[in-house]
Amino acid sequence: MVCNDDGVNAPGIRALIEATRDLGKLLVVAPDKPQSGTGHGITINSTLRLNKLEEAENLEVYSCSGTPVDCIKLAIFKLLPKKPDIVISGINHGSNASINVIYSGTMSAAVEGSLEGVPSIGFSLLDFDINADFSASAIIARKITQQVLQSGLPNGICLNVNVPKLDHSEIMGIKICRQAEGNWEEEFEARTDPTGKEYFWLTGTFKNYDSGTDTDIWALENNYVSVVPIQHDLTAHNALNKLKDWNL
Amino acid sequence: MVCNDDGVNAPGIRALIEATRDLGKLLVVAPDKPQSGTGHGITINSTLRLNKLEEAENLEVYSCSGTPVDCIKLAIFKLLPKKPDIVISGINHGSNASINVIYSGTMSAAVEGSLEGVPSIGFSLLDFDINADFSASAIIARKITQQVLQSGLPNGICLNVNVPKLDHSEIMGIKICRQAEGNWEEEFEARTDPTGKEYFWLTGTFKNYDSGTDTDIWALENNYVSVVPIQHDLTAHNALNKLKDWNL
Repeated sequence: MVCNDDGVNAPGIRALIEATRDLGKLLVVAPDKPQSGTGHGITINSTLRLNKLEEAENLEVYSCSGTPVDCIKLAIFKLLPKKPDIVISGINHGSNASINVIYSGTMSAAVEGSLEGVPSIGFSLLDFDINADFSASAIIARKITQQVLQSGLPNGICLNVNVPKLDHSEIMGIKICRQAEGNWEEEFEARTDPTGKEYFWLTGTFKNYDSGTDTDIWALENNYVSVVPIQHDLTAHNALNKLKDWNL
Repeated sequence: MVCNDDGVNAPGIRALIEATRDLGKLLVVAPDKPQSGTGHGITINSTLRLNKLEEAENLEVYSCSGTPVDCIKLAIFKLLPKKPDIVISGINHGSNASINVIYSGTMSAAVEGSLEGVPSIGFSLLDFDINADFSASAIIARKITQQVLQSGLPNGICLNVNVPKLDHSEIMGIKICRQAEGNWEEEFEARTDPTGKEYFWLTGTFKNYDSGTDTDIWALENNYVSVVPIQHDLTAHNALNKLKDWNL
């Protein structure tokens, strides 16, 4: 099953479909419009639509009015007779390394897949351009998809794969990493609408606070593909004992 | 700073404001409409509006057109001259225990607060009713807010607090827990619109797969308040070595 957050017509998902098309029967369910930054959002207070766009040999493509997570849920619980062998999401236009993983619809689709017990991978290219060159990331995506189809993934874990903006020959290799500690320093750009009222655009700068050489940011800055295993248990296990000292 | 995902006019956030009003100067920035299930969504492709609704002694209330995470970012990077002492989010109408944490706008506001280095707590009551009785949860919220103001929280960690639907006298105590392993089995209800086209409503049933007595679900089922420390590092650290065996 294939999903993304940039929408069903984004070049990135087309590259992923082409790269994996001969590996099996593909069901594509992806948002009908860009859904970047929707995180793990789902549609509770509104209705959902599915629209079949394409049917070819070993390929069915649907657009969905909801979020990437809605797409996964609809595919697994409504469209498919049994769970898919794999969920692949992307190829995202832009980085989902470090803290970006938490805001990413592409990665939330992969997390949702893993929650349903399906080995799942999110792929991202470090290039926001609509005309980005997906050729290297498509080769990487195919290779890692084949690996996961063959060896599976630990239960409940999905992969966050980020690919530097390089030719394939310039990529140094693939590194298993941890998520770098970083965040966004936001700057809201204030503007005035034609009726004189103020509105804001979210802009910001990513800050890496992590000097480790075992992080995804380090790998990408050193021309490696980063692969971070991602879990949905958010418990800070090493804080449990500290809090138990509280007298509540 | 106070936020939620049910919207600035929800009874739950009003209960939280009243419960903490005398603890300090409160800035409330909350969505102008219900934003349940928005997860860690942010507004990238659209504009944001802030609207001042109320100004009283030690209290300012704004509505925001965006998600709960947008509210936190706007408060910290636009409205406040310095970081707040604490972010409290809720009181949510409905459970955010177990996997619900990942879909929850209320909890994502708390996670965003902790990402900005601010001790943060999300509060939820296990009652979806708009007319739910928040009196016990308000007492709990005040108590835990005071504790965190006094002792702080480990860096980058926020708290997910869930309160059973009980009178305060029936609550057995407050338990520090881990997130129970569970998920939602979805059932999409298919309907037909007046023009004959099909649409879906997301419905589902929560399944707890975790028999541990140290989980939030166990605590709530046994009449305790559950407190789970939550982190934003999603790396599955114990899977790192296994993946390093791959030949990529």
